[in-house]
Amino acid sequence: MSKLWSKGYDLQPFIERFMTGDDPKLDLRLVIYDCRGSIAHAAMLCKIGILTEDEYEQLKKALEEIISLSENGTFTIANDEEDVHTAVENFLTRKLGETGKKIHTARSRNDQILTDVRLYMRDQIILATKQVETLCKTLRDFAKKHTEIPYVGRTHYQKAMPSSWGLWAGAFLESLLDDAELLKGAYQILDQCPLGSAASYGVSLLIDRQLTADALGFAAVQNNVLYANNSRGKFEGILIHALSQIMLDLSKMATDMILFSAPEMGYLKLPVAFCPGSSLMPQKKNPCPLELIRAKSAAVTADLFQILETVRALPSGYNRDFQETKRPLFHACDTTVDSLEVMHLILEGIAVDEEACLRGFTNEVFATDEVLNRIQQNGVPFREAYRQVAEQLDSLEKSDPKKNILAKIHIGATGNLGLECSEERIKNLNQLRNLSEKR
Amino acid sequence: MSKLWSKGYDLQPFIERFMTGDDPKLDLRLVIYDCRGSIAHAAMLCKIGILTEDEYEQLKKALEEIISLSENGTFTIANDEEDVHTAVENFLTRKLGETGKKIHTARSRNDQILTDVRLYMRDQIILATKQVETLCKTLRDFAKKHTEIPYVGRTHYQKAMPSSWGLWAGAFLESLLDDAELLKGAYQILDQCPLGSAASYGVSLLIDRQLTADALGFAAVQNNVLYANNSRGKFEGILIHALSQIMLDLSKMATDMILFSAPEMGYLKLPVAFCPGSSLMPQKKNPCPLELIRAKSAAVTADLFQILETVRALPSGYNRDFQETKRPLFHACDTTVDSLEVMHLILEGIAVDEEACLRGFTNEVFATDEVLNRIQQNGVPFREAYRQVAEQLDSLEKSDPKKNILAKIHIGATGNLGLECSEERIKNLNQLRNLSEKR
Amino acid sequence: MSKLWSKGYDLQPFIERFMTGDDPKLDLRLVIYDCRGSIAHAAMLCKIGILTEDEYEQLKKALEEIISLSENGTFTIANDEEDVHTAVENFLTRKLGETGKKIHTARSRNDQILTDVRLYMRDQIILATKQVETLCKTLRDFAKKHTEIPYVGRTHYQKAMPSSWGLWAGAFLESLLDDAELLKGAYQILDQCPLGSAASYGVSLLIDRQLTADALGFAAVQNNVLYANNSRGKFEGILIHALSQIMLDLSKMATDMILFSAPEMGYLKLPVAFCPGSSLMPQKKNPCPLELIRAKSAAVTADLFQILETVRALPSGYNRDFQETKRPLFHACDTTVDSLEVMHLILEGIAVDEEACLRGFTNEVFATDEVLNRIQQNGVPFREAYRQVAEQLDSLEKSDPKKNILAKIHIGATGNLGLECSEERIKNLNQLRNLSEKR
Amino acid sequence: MSKLWSKGYDLQPFIERFMTGDDPKLDLRLVIYDCRGSIAHAAMLCKIGILTEDEYEQLKKALEEIISLSENGTFTIANDEEDVHTAVENFLTRKLGETGKKIHTARSRNDQILTDVRLYMRDQIILATKQVETLCKTLRDFAKKHTEIPYVGRTHYQKAMPSSWGLWAGAFLESLLDDAELLKGAYQILDQCPLGSAASYGVSLLIDRQLTADALGFAAVQNNVLYANNSRGKFEGILIHALSQIMLDLSKMATDMILFSAPEMGYLKLPVAFCPGSSLMPQKKNPCPLELIRAKSAAVTADLFQILETVRALPSGYNRDFQETKRPLFHACDTTVDSLEVMHLILEGIAVDEEACLRGFTNEVFATDEVLNRIQQNGVPFREAYRQVAEQLDSLEKSDPKKNILAKIHIGATGNLGLECSEERIKNLNQLRNLSEKR
Repeated sequence: MSKLWSKGYDLQPFIERFMTGDDPKLDLRLVIYDCRGSIAHAAMLCKIGILTEDEYEQLKKALEEIISLSENGTFTIANDEEDVHTAVENFLTRKLGETGKKIHTARSRNDQILTDVRLYMRDQIILATKQVETLCKTLRDFAKKHTEIPYVGRTHYQKAMPSSWGLWAGAFLESLLDDAELLKGAYQILDQCPLGSAASYGVSLLIDRQLTADALGFAAVQNNVLYANNSRGKFEGILIHALSQIMLDLSKMATDMILFSAPEMGYLKLPVAFCPGSSLMPQKKNPCPLELIRAKSAAVTADLFQILETVRALPSGYNRDFQETKRPLFHACDTTVDSLEVMHLILEGIAVDEEACLRGFTNEVFATDEVLNRIQQNGVPFREAYRQVAEQLDSLEKSDPKKNILAKIHIGATGNLGLECSEERIKNLNQLRNLSEKR
Repeated sequence: MSKLWSKGYDLQPFIERFMTGDDPKLDLRLVIYDCRGSIAHAAMLCKIGILTEDEYEQLKKALEEIISLSENGTFTIANDEEDVHTAVENFLTRKLGETGKKIHTARSRNDQILTDVRLYMRDQIILATKQVETLCKTLRDFAKKHTEIPYVGRTHYQKAMPSSWGLWAGAFLESLLDDAELLKGAYQILDQCPLGSAASYGVSLLIDRQLTADALGFAAVQNNVLYANNSRGKFEGILIHALSQIMLDLSKMATDMILFSAPEMGYLKLPVAFCPGSSLMPQKKNPCPLELIRAKSAAVTADLFQILETVRALPSGYNRDFQETKRPLFHACDTTVDSLEVMHLILEGIAVDEEACLRGFTNEVFATDEVLNRIQQNGVPFREAYRQVAEQLDSLEKSDPKKNILAKIHIGATGNLGLECSEERIKNLNQLRNLSEKR
Repeated sequence: MSKLWSKGYDLQPFIERFMTGDDPKLDLRLVIYDCRGSIAHAAMLCKIGILTEDEYEQLKKALEEIISLSENGTFTIANDEEDVHTAVENFLTRKLGETGKKIHTARSRNDQILTDVRLYMRDQIILATKQVETLCKTLRDFAKKHTEIPYVGRTHYQKAMPSSWGLWAGAFLESLLDDAELLKGAYQILDQCPLGSAASYGVSLLIDRQLTADALGFAAVQNNVLYANNSRGKFEGILIHALSQIMLDLSKMATDMILFSAPEMGYLKLPVAFCPGSSLMPQKKNPCPLELIRAKSAAVTADLFQILETVRALPSGYNRDFQETKRPLFHACDTTVDSLEVMHLILEGIAVDEEACLRGFTNEVFATDEVLNRIQQNGVPFREAYRQVAEQLDSLEKSDPKKNILAKIHIGATGNLGLECSEERIKNLNQLRNLSEKR
Repeated sequence: MSKLWSKGYDLQPFIERFMTGDDPKLDLRLVIYDCRGSIAHAAMLCKIGILTEDEYEQLKKALEEIISLSENGTFTIANDEEDVHTAVENFLTRKLGETGKKIHTARSRNDQILTDVRLYMRDQIILATKQVETLCKTLRDFAKKHTEIPYVGRTHYQKAMPSSWGLWAGAFLESLLDDAELLKGAYQILDQCPLGSAASYGVSLLIDRQLTADALGFAAVQNNVLYANNSRGKFEGILIHALSQIMLDLSKMATDMILFSAPEMGYLKLPVAFCPGSSLMPQKKNPCPLELIRAKSAAVTADLFQILETVRALPSGYNRDFQETKRPLFHACDTTVDSLEVMHLILEGIAVDEEACLRGFTNEVFATDEVLNRIQQNGVPFREAYRQVAEQLDSLEKSDPKKNILAKIHIGATGNLGLECSEERIKNLNQLRNLSEKR
């Protein structure tokens, strides 16, 4: 089938392949969104008199057929069709003749792809939030279960002060809950409908943009038609930034787990079902999924960087550079959602070796507690007490780690984790999901 | 004066200088925040009985003295003092003797710097929001003034369809208003008080973290003490991401302005007061500030990248790597705030050459309007009308650009810019500022 | 078939899929290299008595069969085989029984993948250099053909001084020749054989690493076995940096072409065969391949960044993070090679509109020449002459642009392009290729 | 004093400050190079008759005076002078009157800054190479001294196979020697003189570019005048890439050292003179310089990224964006040179705890050796032996680690480090230095 813009000349074949790139494959995940957008657009065209009721019904039915085909994995985009929009319009024209040729009235592929990607991102945010919720619950359960299990907290990789696995899990729980705020913030910004902005400059028909925005469940119309196009890449950056913050958390969690399960530490034990071996060394059981999460966090940061840089020095309006924003977007979404699930599975399976953790409590770990003790008991100024203890490290006595961690009861300390606040926030995580289900 | 951790050995001099780096200079902008944090901390120590009322008053007075010195630019940090915290504690000990030695009770430099930077970032967000507000008002005025001034909108650097300078300014106005949401979102996430988290593991005294959080005007305590330290760099990343989105907008605006003021275009005229010349070519008047904004947007993206990468593979708890997050943070804040002001000044001074803009309207710019015209008048299907016009481009007639842009009246089009919605949003921009002034 | 490290436990299925990722597909481009490496390894095992002559011959034949299958596109890697190494060893064991089980003696997948990727990179450098050579010749021809065609050279997007299309093409020619030096430098560094380094720590057999290095045509053995593994990612970074420099050149060239073919300039004309249209606007012919090259240059820079960051904070020895280095490596190689070909095709087809170029020469373009003229004729000091001309810009006279550009004859100026030096360097570009063909 | 391009109008003060930025401070490190370039330029102007012998001598003397002032730290650049070029020309005009006004004949600040930065980078490469040489010697000495000291080599943070500290140091030695090749490659590419390219388009005087290139000790003239300007940023990127590869090596070395000196490992001991303490915890001695090196490696990668992105989408010729390339260049050079020195000092002071290292050798570390043993002794196929040993891990016997590492004698293994090859390469590192000293 011909391209939408065909007008009597052919493209140089190598350059055509270069321009098409992976789009026929990448765009498969946009088919459903493209059709939904087209159904809303057709309804609007019908309302303003461009389509008859009958034409609208035909188009709607054909578009729903494409959605079914796509859900079954049988809708394809031919290489010479360039992209999802062409494949869909060609399908409609093959099936409905003249009626198919009317669907593109008053829109451009520019606002179509904007709409497709916007709908995709909205769903991905909900999906990512759901995965964050799952991991948060696992972290909360882990924190509850390990509230009284101490380990030597460290700074600079060196032993610092008594900590607990409850504190450790609670830290990531709160961090992910903050990430969920970023996801929500991203959702609120991109929940504006770009459809009708056409090729960045609107159209001379009196289209009803509110109707399409409502039909697609957007909170608002993205008003300025030039801004709609200028926001391509920008909004992807906002979402990927939120995803990269999640990946940073997972990477830190993975880094801790890899370190604490090194044999000399042995504080954590990974089940063998997570640990592939070596092709050469028979004894090896390696924390590979954790290492991959760490590496993939760099990949998602690279996705963010690519998007920001692609759009950084572009003039206003659509530029073909935007095509290159799809690959990093899809990659970042898939990677983050999968990594969240993997971390959830690992956390469910990982074991804390309490005895090993207790063995780690050498005397100097209690030095700071001793300093504060002297202040309370003898009224020595802090800096004085600090120097005394520094000089008498060898005579420090070991305390009971469990008692120690439970005795620290100020807000957020090991004896007062405040998990109930997180509990409340976890409950609120399904707000976006509910919102979307109502649509 | 000695370092806080001194205990009888000296550091290798070259390595000491390497570790101190630019901190004595960089930390100058944290002095006031460090003192405010210390005043709140001292008040808390007084309440829980570590300090007497008298000691607290002495400390408060001395810390307020440092604030005055800092505001006058006369407080300095010696190279061998390493950082702001050491300089302040040394000042207190010099001045107050034993009382000074008590200020560091139940805290670490880790939570101190977290608090300092948190307070700094909060102020910077308010400052940046204020600058965004200024530019938004200038954009709104520009849009209003130029609502009826057409220019040829473009995609791919090629002539596309009729546009207007009102639409152009409105696009950036809405984009910056969305950026302000990012700033606000960043504010809400980082408006949690890390003080009292100490060296990531809390302390054995029953400190009152709510008291210090309230005294410093934070919306909440950052609960989990390990999370407080894990969020170093993370929160900086959230803020710098918001700043980098602002810089992307300014860079796109600058790119447009540079292009449209190239002599062959001549649609915009920059006042000479913004345009340095060449040392060699007598005729040159160059759009240097715009080019610098474009380049600085890459620098702020690099700041973001540096921060994200620095923390990406760190284990939990404080690591010295965090020291390197200050430079990019300060740079990103300064650069964005200054760039916003420069863009505001330029936009106030730049002139649209209406005649040149009108000359740009060659016939083909109206091709799309003609397509839609045929659909409305003759009921031709869109794709058909598109092909007809494509074949008859030579016989296209030119329309009146002004009439054209004003006749497009659907939501967000040139004849219906919807500036009143932005007006409302501009008004809400001072919420954060008001919040802060109440503190 | 089972995994190489199977030892009686299964991996958690979701995590297994996560770890395998796209490897079965990505690794297809390594099959041939993996087999070549195995043939060399088998020859060595035979020489040191681990394999009999007959076993070696069987293995060699089977490996050559895999190479044939791979060349025909019929060798596949099953998802549960994880990677190319497993698929190949399984093939050998299925086909040859016990003999197949011997191939992995004294090696690890760690040095195998190092060798595969090293061989791949070596070939890609030769391929990229060949494409650079093609484009250099096109640039040279373009420069020769357009030596006497002037256009207004610019700085800051503003008109600066007379230039020529010969100078323009010559600039990129020399830049690409410098890039070729980077490719050559990368080749020389990575032309060391890592085979035999095993899992980073060598083996207890007296393997002959020189034999395998020679058999694979490497200039040297990569000596230290730990360094071999530490160089994973590092060497990829060196290659991708060279590729990113090529992409930067292509991006600048594309930026110039896009700008100079904007309708108000019209100095360059792109053939329609390179310019897709718009789905909405019938008149559009867009410079899409150039925009994509510009965007893809950001993508290759992102590949570089991803690689550098992935390895930045890893400890010595193999870490699973390395798996993530393959995707950006393959992407950067494919993208650069294709972009070079596209730019070559475009440069062959693009037309200079000489008349439009001449029209661009407004009087002020000659201001600097007038300054230097006054110095020579009247002995006025430069800064004086500069100020005189700056004040008398309106009375400047226009000169003949052609005469002007040909009269500038110092080294490297428009009248003395020095293409003969580049000619010599182009000839030397086939050195690497010859080297490789001799292998 | 006035600006070089002054022609009767003032810049808007805020914008002027924004444009000047930190240049008056940053440019101080270019003063000497700027003067050297001007002396060469003046000699050339004299030869072609623009300056008299006397004028040349006066200029040379004044420029040498500035060099002296700069070496004494007493040459300053006023804020309203913008940059080093203005400050130097103003000095000459103040001192020499009309003669000073002649110095800028036939050049632009564009080729001046190119020359300054080129000379700076050449010196920095020599300096960095010298520091690499120092560290290489320290690594060689460390490797020699620790050839027979075993530790448990690891992959995936898990125990893998016997290794030695000799092997460890040798790995970084060879890596740095490869980095030195990158530095040398960078030197060779940027050893071309851009002076005389003026504002990207040459000049109408018959200047003698070979003379200035020779006078400044460049290997060649950078021929094409437009390429000279297009290479701004590009060449900086080539150098910073080489520096970032050095930083990656140092970061990996630091990561190893931090890990191996964690208390549970204790294989390495850092002298206290490298380890600051904590302000709160009396027992702490932290590996801060190593953590800072790790963090600074991210900063240098960010410098690289900033440079590449700044120039990525610029059109040909000078653009003001280039000004922003100086800050990351200077930062990357300083950081790398200092980090190399710090690593050298640390490596000289660090101690290996041999007993702790030996304690680390648990039985399974010898599993792979046992596999290969069975192959040699019983002729079992590798994959068979691998599975046998995997099943019998509990009955593995421990070997003597020292004997083990010394018995591995194939190329590059622990018993055959091949340090003599590195020795040879270390000797060749002074080639660049010698080259420069001859100038």
